[in-house]
Amino acid sequence: MLELLNTILQYYCKIETYRPVVTGVSGGPDSLVLLDVLNRLGYPVIVGHLNHLIRPQGQLEASLVKKSAMERGLIYVCEEFDVPSYAREQKLSIETAAREIRYRFLFKLAGEYRAQAVAVGHTADDQVETILLHLLRGSGMAGLRGMSYSALPNQWSNTIPLVRPLLSIWRLEVLEYINRHELQPSDDVSNLDISYLRNRVRHELIPLLETYNPGVRKSIWRTAEIVKDDMTVLDHMVDQAWDNCLDEIGENYLSFRRNDFIKQAKSVQRYLLIRGVRKLRPGSWDYDFSIIDRGIRFIENARSGSVSELAQGLKLFADLDKLWLCGDERELPIWKQFPRLNHQQGVNISVPGRVFLSSDWVLQAVGPTLIEDEDHDEIFNNSDTYTTWVDADQLAHPLVVRGRVPGDIISPLGMGESTIKISDLMINLKIPSQARDFWPIVCDQQEVIWVPGMRMSHRVRVRADTKQVVKFSALSTPRE
Amino acid sequence: MLELLNTILQYYCKIETYRPVVTGVSGGPDSLVLLDVLNRLGYPVIVGHLNHLIRPQGQLEASLVKKSAMERGLIYVCEEFDVPSYAREQKLSIETAAREIRYRFLFKLAGEYRAQAVAVGHTADDQVETILLHLLRGSGMAGLRGMSYSALPNQWSNTIPLVRPLLSIWRLEVLEYINRHELQPSDDVSNLDISYLRNRVRHELIPLLETYNPGVRKSIWRTAEIVKDDMTVLDHMVDQAWDNCLDEIGENYLSFRRNDFIKQAKSVQRYLLIRGVRKLRPGSWDYDFSIIDRGIRFIENARSGSVSELAQGLKLFADLDKLWLCGDERELPIWKQFPRLNHQQGVNISVPGRVFLSSDWVLQAVGPTLIEDEDHDEIFNNSDTYTTWVDADQLAHPLVVRGRVPGDIISPLGMGESTIKISDLMINLKIPSQARDFWPIVCDQQEVIWVPGMRMSHRVRVRADTKQVVKFSALSTPRE
Repeated sequence: MLELLNTILQYYCKIETYRPVVTGVSGGPDSLVLLDVLNRLGYPVIVGHLNHLIRPQGQLEASLVKKSAMERGLIYVCEEFDVPSYAREQKLSIETAAREIRYRFLFKLAGEYRAQAVAVGHTADDQVETILLHLLRGSGMAGLRGMSYSALPNQWSNTIPLVRPLLSIWRLEVLEYINRHELQPSDDVSNLDISYLRNRVRHELIPLLETYNPGVRKSIWRTAEIVKDDMTVLDHMVDQAWDNCLDEIGENYLSFRRNDFIKQAKSVQRYLLIRGVRKLRPGSWDYDFSIIDRGIRFIENARSGSVSELAQGLKLFADLDKLWLCGDERELPIWKQFPRLNHQQGVNISVPGRVFLSSDWVLQAVGPTLIEDEDHDEIFNNSDTYTTWVDADQLAHPLVVRGRVPGDIISPLGMGESTIKISDLMINLKIPSQARDFWPIVCDQQEVIWVPGMRMSHRVRVRADTKQVVKFSALSTPRE
Repeated sequence: MLELLNTILQYYCKIETYRPVVTGVSGGPDSLVLLDVLNRLGYPVIVGHLNHLIRPQGQLEASLVKKSAMERGLIYVCEEFDVPSYAREQKLSIETAAREIRYRFLFKLAGEYRAQAVAVGHTADDQVETILLHLLRGSGMAGLRGMSYSALPNQWSNTIPLVRPLLSIWRLEVLEYINRHELQPSDDVSNLDISYLRNRVRHELIPLLETYNPGVRKSIWRTAEIVKDDMTVLDHMVDQAWDNCLDEIGENYLSFRRNDFIKQAKSVQRYLLIRGVRKLRPGSWDYDFSIIDRGIRFIENARSGSVSELAQGLKLFADLDKLWLCGDERELPIWKQFPRLNHQQGVNISVPGRVFLSSDWVLQAVGPTLIEDEDHDEIFNNSDTYTTWVDADQLAHPLVVRGRVPGDIISPLGMGESTIKISDLMINLKIPSQARDFWPIVCDQQEVIWVPGMRMSHRVRVRADTKQVVKFSALSTPRE
């Protein structure tokens, strides 16, 4: 067994004998064997023990672990944490809370000692239980691969791996090792922090399955090995697809190129979404494929501008040619290019004067100015749709900036009396539907006189006989 | 439900309303609902019923199915088959025998009626049971995808698909449908041909799992859907890898280019082997990954010439640059290029004379001939290593053709007295190890005088003073 474990430690866990390994030791058989094996094989072990303060025996267990560490001349670090209170506060189950606190402690320790890895004592039996639990939950293939020999546990560390050297060792072999080497494990600690469901899987489901097939644990364990290899291939495909489809990634959002995304196989689309969520919300996330599949269906059918809740507080937002995964679709960078009116009601604007539309945009009116004082060239050759000049004497005050309302029309400059619905104008100009509702429109008492970025009204145009003008600008202001 | 099923029939089963569908109807709820649904949706149904002669009620069940068909004006074909006797003869379980006979009957019927498909009534519950059975057996991811809506069942037909329209319908929904439409299923027939293990999964395991998670059947069913999509991606990879690695395929063998094969991911290697076995041995094959993995390990470590049993009576055989999957490695085409001596003992060869080495090869001795009658140019510029001329007067008769024995040496032409081991000679010339043992060697009473394809002895060479010569040839004869 030692030889096998040495191979696993080197090739699968990829750990080395000249750098410390933090080892979580509860004092139960699994972790005690792990401690003993690592020590025998010459790995510098730092023993980490957390007293969860769940049961009175905790002190005794801690001292047993300490003794095991001392006998071997190993560094021993123990911490106490009131897990029951924490669980109550955070509304977590005791097991979940214990697990969270324990890993946080072990990775903190690993950071302090510049350890190469945190090692824990999960066995082949734990693996089988995990897979059955995943199957019960319907977590798909990614769940059926179970735990791995070595993985970066993003919620605790992006650099220090969590390794599980005993993953191919059965509990029975652990007990044989305990007897052969006369180790003294604590009783019962292995059941301390496992869930009710896992306990039932261990003591009820697996024994039943063994009456169907005495080798069922090995069968399930082997299934995990095969699925792991299959997932390696899929992961590689997803890596490529990710590079192919990802458009942009920010702090609270990312975007995929829609065309590239929908070209992917359904399976790959699922893993792209899952990976996206994980990038934006690192930490443990028990994803549910029914949620992911809702996301996939949304993407399939989404019109530009539609939004759907996904998971972890993230939404999917469909643009014309992009898919955004974001915390708040209103904060997507695409909005910065469009003016946005945050006021619920219309706001008066005097001339001269200005109105803050949103934190990013301001609308200002300059004038009235005598036409002689203006640069004619600038007025008549203006190509900036966010600036316009109107005939000051045509304006019926007060002027109002407001959002669009159904039936809004404009007679665009150069089209004489003929009108167009503002909603049609926006569609023609391919304004994303989400942006249309918040688009500022400048009106006088008669009609819409200017839609910034689009058109001004023919009626208020600057003519040959115009005496004085007002210059309107919608300006995006860089955020501080 | 009808609407959903119509979508499934069109998009997943890909069947059409203008061509007949053979439907297997036992008379139980599932198949009766299938019959009714297909008929209502306008598919031309041909009702196939097999009386397995397992139980006395068989006649009654057949007449009930006939009535269901007649009421709807459908073609009804019934066959009787003595499944219990067949099972005894073939040493099969009753369920396996019943299944085999029934499908053979349905596909025969489909062929006769030029049907587009054979439809059977497997439900979502059957799917869940199948997946659990696969998990119990450790059949890996390919097993976890369960049954599909439509598949070509190679053992019964390469052109007519087997479709399972009810695969997303739960047994409970089937029963609701039965009640709503007042159908009259036979009792108990659904349990007629299911295995003991499946029965236990249905009546014991799944109810237990539901106490863990009431939605467990849906979870497992969804897992299958996800795995199916994942496997679609993998299958596509394996298609590409197959095209990349396959070298040659014959009736009882195929070969992969070794370098290309070992470059593939382990998961892909597994599926290539499985696909290879399926190509050579069509029909149902419950592969076991531990066997496949033994094959993978063999390939990893195999020296040229080594052989390993795989599955279905097939062997793996490693060549220098190829991997062969074959029924009998001695019949591989690579051997045709090498002479092969099938005799256990040495065989005398007279001059002139000939010896059949194997069904493919013959060794002949022509002469003795006066050297004046030979073409000197041919003798001294001979580049065909399978033909040689020796000095007839140097030969110590009788001549023997035999296999190599340990310690065999030769003094090759042009090397004077110095000798080389024949085993080294063969290694130098890169003769696959398997071919070496059967290589014919021509000896006189003193020593090895010729190794066809390699070297002749210096001692018997044709010299300036040679008077008469013997011409030896090893010839491969085309098989009839």
